[in-house]
Amino acid sequence: MKIFILSAFVASALMAGSLQSDAQKAGLKPIPASKVALTKLTSNPANPTTSSKVELGKMLYMDPRLSKSGLISCNTCHNVGLGGSDGMSSAVGHKWTSNPHGLSSPTVYNAVFYSQQFWDGRSPHLEDQAQGPIQAGPEMAAPKEYVTAVVSSIPQYVTMFQKAYGKDVKITFEKVADTIAIFERTLVTPSRYDDFLNGNKKALTTPEQKGLKTFIDKGCATCHNDIALGGTMQAFGVTGAYKYINVGDFKGDKNGMVRVPTLRNITQTAPYFHNGQIATLGEAIQEMGRIQLGVTLTNDETASIETFLKALDGRKPTITYPMFPTSNATTPKVDVN
Amino acid sequence: MKIFILSAFVASALMAGSLQSDAQKAGLKPIPASKVALTKLTSNPANPTTSSKVELGKMLYMDPRLSKSGLISCNTCHNVGLGGSDGMSSAVGHKWTSNPHGLSSPTVYNAVFYSQQFWDGRSPHLEDQAQGPIQAGPEMAAPKEYVTAVVSSIPQYVTMFQKAYGKDVKITFEKVADTIAIFERTLVTPSRYDDFLNGNKKALTTPEQKGLKTFIDKGCATCHNDIALGGTMQAFGVTGAYKYINVGDFKGDKNGMVRVPTLRNITQTAPYFHNGQIATLGEAIQEMGRIQLGVTLTNDETASIETFLKALDGRKPTITYPMFPTSNATTPKVDVN
Repeated sequence: MKIFILSAFVASALMAGSLQSDAQKAGLKPIPASKVALTKLTSNPANPTTSSKVELGKMLYMDPRLSKSGLISCNTCHNVGLGGSDGMSSAVGHKWTSNPHGLSSPTVYNAVFYSQQFWDGRSPHLEDQAQGPIQAGPEMAAPKEYVTAVVSSIPQYVTMFQKAYGKDVKITFEKVADTIAIFERTLVTPSRYDDFLNGNKKALTTPEQKGLKTFIDKGCATCHNDIALGGTMQAFGVTGAYKYINVGDFKGDKNGMVRVPTLRNITQTAPYFHNGQIATLGEAIQEMGRIQLGVTLTNDETASIETFLKALDGRKPTITYPMFPTSNATTPKVDVN
Repeated sequence: MKIFILSAFVASALMAGSLQSDAQKAGLKPIPASKVALTKLTSNPANPTTSSKVELGKMLYMDPRLSKSGLISCNTCHNVGLGGSDGMSSAVGHKWTSNPHGLSSPTVYNAVFYSQQFWDGRSPHLEDQAQGPIQAGPEMAAPKEYVTAVVSSIPQYVTMFQKAYGKDVKITFEKVADTIAIFERTLVTPSRYDDFLNGNKKALTTPEQKGLKTFIDKGCATCHNDIALGGTMQAFGVTGAYKYINVGDFKGDKNGMVRVPTLRNITQTAPYFHNGQIATLGEAIQEMGRIQLGVTLTNDETASIETFLKALDGRKPTITYPMFPTSNATTPKVDVN
């Protein structure tokens, strides 16, 4: 009996060890366990992360006064309490406008690990990305000058910018977006999966390890790889046409490539796919098998992969709700029209 | 010289002492300094405050999934980071509908101290009030059954209700509203003004004390009294017609009475008056003098009252942003139409 338990234990440990190596070979990488390594990896070398910038960036990220209406913040569609997204198939913004391309809001969590931003990958990093939705008519609808005027009119914001960047800081729209991006760079969520890849063989249960193995063996990691388990541009509909290809007019980038979404916290970001047409994780996994890998995944295989994906739910940073500095008579008026 | 300083000190202390007594006579009351007294005062006897209920209530208050669209939470219009309001003259809700009566969102902070809720005072307490905007078509537009179905479909919410109310709890719409109200009951903001009334004579500066005296002497405390410095129903436009009476169709309650807004954190809740037509505190003070007291306040008197009102900015509770429990396939779908 003892021998049996021991050999089961050894077999399990061997499986874990080999699986860690398989994951590495498949291009899967953990969020670094070391805080120093993580900060180095997520920091923008041109604008290093500091606590003053993060605190200011958090305020700007959550402040609805950065929108023309005064009603919509970055956090409205990329809600840090809702897995970093909004739970809608297609985002709704200024004047209740649905995303004109039928696109769903991608999660802000772990977006720092993407090599491209937006579903069509048109933006190289978060600093650039953050400028888009603030100005876009169907989203926050605020012209650059409006945003700069709002922020500059609020003395406490000016003081915070000075604290973050020095007394001579010039508050520009780009600086606002850069600072929001610095906050977003802190939104990473290490999970038990990372603990496992970082060496703790017991961090994943046996069924979760089996799921990871299925995930790799079936080829999911071909696109869902690196730290984000996603984040690069890939062809879409390789082995079959997507069920809901006709919903919205999104066609990907100029080559029809689509930015692969992260699988981290995937249980929290339904509905799935770029146009949010798939309600459940099980259906999403099967559809991916069919149109990307040309395989029909059995219910067991699907369930096994899903078991693994659930282990990607990560530990979120604690976010204190900001008490925004007060507007005054010089602050531009909100306009809901 | 010493005698002069001493007598100035004594005069100042005497003035403070007499002012505290004047304030009391004028019906002004502080937020109690004792935590026990405060909890007793703000707790609903029928549903006593506990930390489990407050935590759950905070989540429900901030969860946009309680609205039909999944986009609007209580916190959208009563933003705890924006002085408990939204900075708009007239609230905007479901399908971007402006408040049909042209009404501004009152602050949630210290609303527990009001004797009536809503601008027309139609609701007796926060438990009842919280039911209104969730259901109202132009606000969150969610039928009772929808809200109950959403909350009941999310296992972690069910567990939290059981923890808060016992294993046999029945999750009803009214229970949801009651729990939101329990969170709101904790949103009180003691200020230096309270410290002053509670006995610390140095808590207000001499100009602030002078402002408080002007506030009392001019008659402001006739309506802006008790703990909230507001919160009861009063006649509106007593000695003159309000400048913007024709904006919106709000006429007060059946007797034309309007619920007096709190002056706490008033620097943070512009624009002012029930229809949010006045941008600055100075203009609000002068308009109140003209239409409620029949006096033309000089610029000095106005500035003095404003100096006092600024001392009503209170200490806010720290609010950790909730990580909402995840929806699932049984959760009713959001509907933006």
